[in-house]
Amino acid sequence: MSRVFSGIQPTGEPHIGNYFGAMRNYVRLGEQFGKNSLYCVVDLHAITNPNAFDPATLAEKTYEMALANFAIGLDPSQVIFFVQSHVPEHHELNWIFTSITPVGELERMTQYKDKAGQFESIPSGLLMYPALMAADILLYKADTVPVGEDQDQHLELTREIARKFNHHFGQTFPEPKSVHDPNALRIPGVDGNGKMGKSKGQGSTIGILEPLDAIWQKLRVAPTDPARVRRTDPGNPDVCLIFDYHKLFSDLDTIQLVDRECRTAGIGCVDCKKKLMEGVTEHLTPIQQRAEELRTDPDYVKDALRQGAQEARAIARPVIEEVREKVGFLKL
Amino acid sequence: MSRVFSGIQPTGEPHIGNYFGAMRNYVRLGEQFGKNSLYCVVDLHAITNPNAFDPATLAEKTYEMALANFAIGLDPSQVIFFVQSHVPEHHELNWIFTSITPVGELERMTQYKDKAGQFESIPSGLLMYPALMAADILLYKADTVPVGEDQDQHLELTREIARKFNHHFGQTFPEPKSVHDPNALRIPGVDGNGKMGKSKGQGSTIGILEPLDAIWQKLRVAPTDPARVRRTDPGNPDVCLIFDYHKLFSDLDTIQLVDRECRTAGIGCVDCKKKLMEGVTEHLTPIQQRAEELRTDPDYVKDALRQGAQEARAIARPVIEEVREKVGFLKL
Repeated sequence: MSRVFSGIQPTGEPHIGNYFGAMRNYVRLGEQFGKNSLYCVVDLHAITNPNAFDPATLAEKTYEMALANFAIGLDPSQVIFFVQSHVPEHHELNWIFTSITPVGELERMTQYKDKAGQFESIPSGLLMYPALMAADILLYKADTVPVGEDQDQHLELTREIARKFNHHFGQTFPEPKSVHDPNALRIPGVDGNGKMGKSKGQGSTIGILEPLDAIWQKLRVAPTDPARVRRTDPGNPDVCLIFDYHKLFSDLDTIQLVDRECRTAGIGCVDCKKKLMEGVTEHLTPIQQRAEELRTDPDYVKDALRQGAQEARAIARPVIEEVREKVGFLKL
Repeated sequence: MSRVFSGIQPTGEPHIGNYFGAMRNYVRLGEQFGKNSLYCVVDLHAITNPNAFDPATLAEKTYEMALANFAIGLDPSQVIFFVQSHVPEHHELNWIFTSITPVGELERMTQYKDKAGQFESIPSGLLMYPALMAADILLYKADTVPVGEDQDQHLELTREIARKFNHHFGQTFPEPKSVHDPNALRIPGVDGNGKMGKSKGQGSTIGILEPLDAIWQKLRVAPTDPARVRRTDPGNPDVCLIFDYHKLFSDLDTIQLVDRECRTAGIGCVDCKKKLMEGVTEHLTPIQQRAEELRTDPDYVKDALRQGAQEARAIARPVIEEVREKVGFLKL
């Protein structure tokens, strides 16, 4: 029996890059694996990067990330959805893993090297991040981890830690595999400067809970094929981010229509964007309505997270007991 | 109001170096500070050094260390005595501290550099050790830490972490001071190769719970003043470890007598050792009897540790709640 674990950064309002790249996949895996799929808002990871972490907003961002996932259709009664810091067993396993995880392995992680460069003095949490990530996954003996390809190196380290623990203390953990959503798309930011969410500020992202008129204002000024200067110039959809969005939000007829009409200058960019906005509206309206419904019940999200933490701990406790015994801690 | 915290390594049977260097001081501080003195067997630290840690014996060593402390007169009903891994809040604070503790600070710790040299690949737990130590102390807002001078650098880092946390998240922690027992003695090993317990094997140590005849066998062959070859040669107590032991175990009259008689060849080394053995016997017999009594009740030590962990957590929980709120974790 497989068990799925995935960590979700508490970045606050998720954008359509998160939605099409990961969140939709959670819903699908949740329907398949039920209570054997665990989704965890990783607030303990969030504090390791002081540049991206503000104590004044962490709680709100954590809450909003949970709410957004519920709004897109992840049902907390069908899966296990919880917040990392509500399950202290993550820490216990993390510390045990530090004793078998070499400093050198952590130092050679590409993500660490990339992030460390941003700091005058590097927080040690940034270095230890992959050991905690290994604990996140192995605490539930999860074997299936839906992540982006940028996490493959961390998953390889997770497998190494599992192998090392099994070798030293006896067979305990599976060696989890990353699974890449075949539908995970590299979605460009609406400002045209690379992947959505990677450039600074709100300018590049379209939030799934963002008011539709605010989304329209961003689409209205979004760059299109730079070679198409006049309305009468033919355009090239292959280099237009609006066309990329059509592929996410529009039906097949509309996609084929704008592809053809753009190339022949039969449709202008403004009309093309209006057609996109119809698809965006159709897609996001039910999600945003669901989010509003969830907000009317002030306890819904917190009750769901409390339940999720209990369910997660019910799986984690016996694993921690097993690990404690194997490592040799005194049992009372 | 001061609060005392001290960590005790679960090295198994404590020796007379531990006893005169630290444990006796715990009893004294315990009488002074009562339930504001916390003593913690640091099994979570023990696993960071794979060379010194064996899962097959950790639990027993932890148990024996607690029993020995109770046997020398530390009263678990008067102080708070517990095992580190029984209070998971240590981990929570440790992780939060990693986000404000720079890698560079940890790398420049002298003890880390010394120990790291023993490994082909350095366990990351060894690097993170001082952040956990800071968490051990600050979790109880302890301000007084009786330790050896070799821990002064770690205490300085603990103060830095406290200052940094207070600066970023608001005044929370005191800046704890190390206190060095004026009576803490650098006690030589009985094999004559430096400080007791520092050289490998059991040869250098005299265990406080070691059978008296085994202790005598070690004393009997222990080196004395190497310049005193014949019985009729005068000796120099200042370079004799047996005389160092007399200063710990014998009464003032005996100390003065052997000092004088050694220098004049009035007493031989064997007789001098026999006089020492009288003091050792007088000193250790009640401790060993008390240890035997404690062993007759199979539940005594575990009950005391269970109670100690509860008392420690009762102090730690509100501190963790305060910290969680200041760092900004979502509260349910």
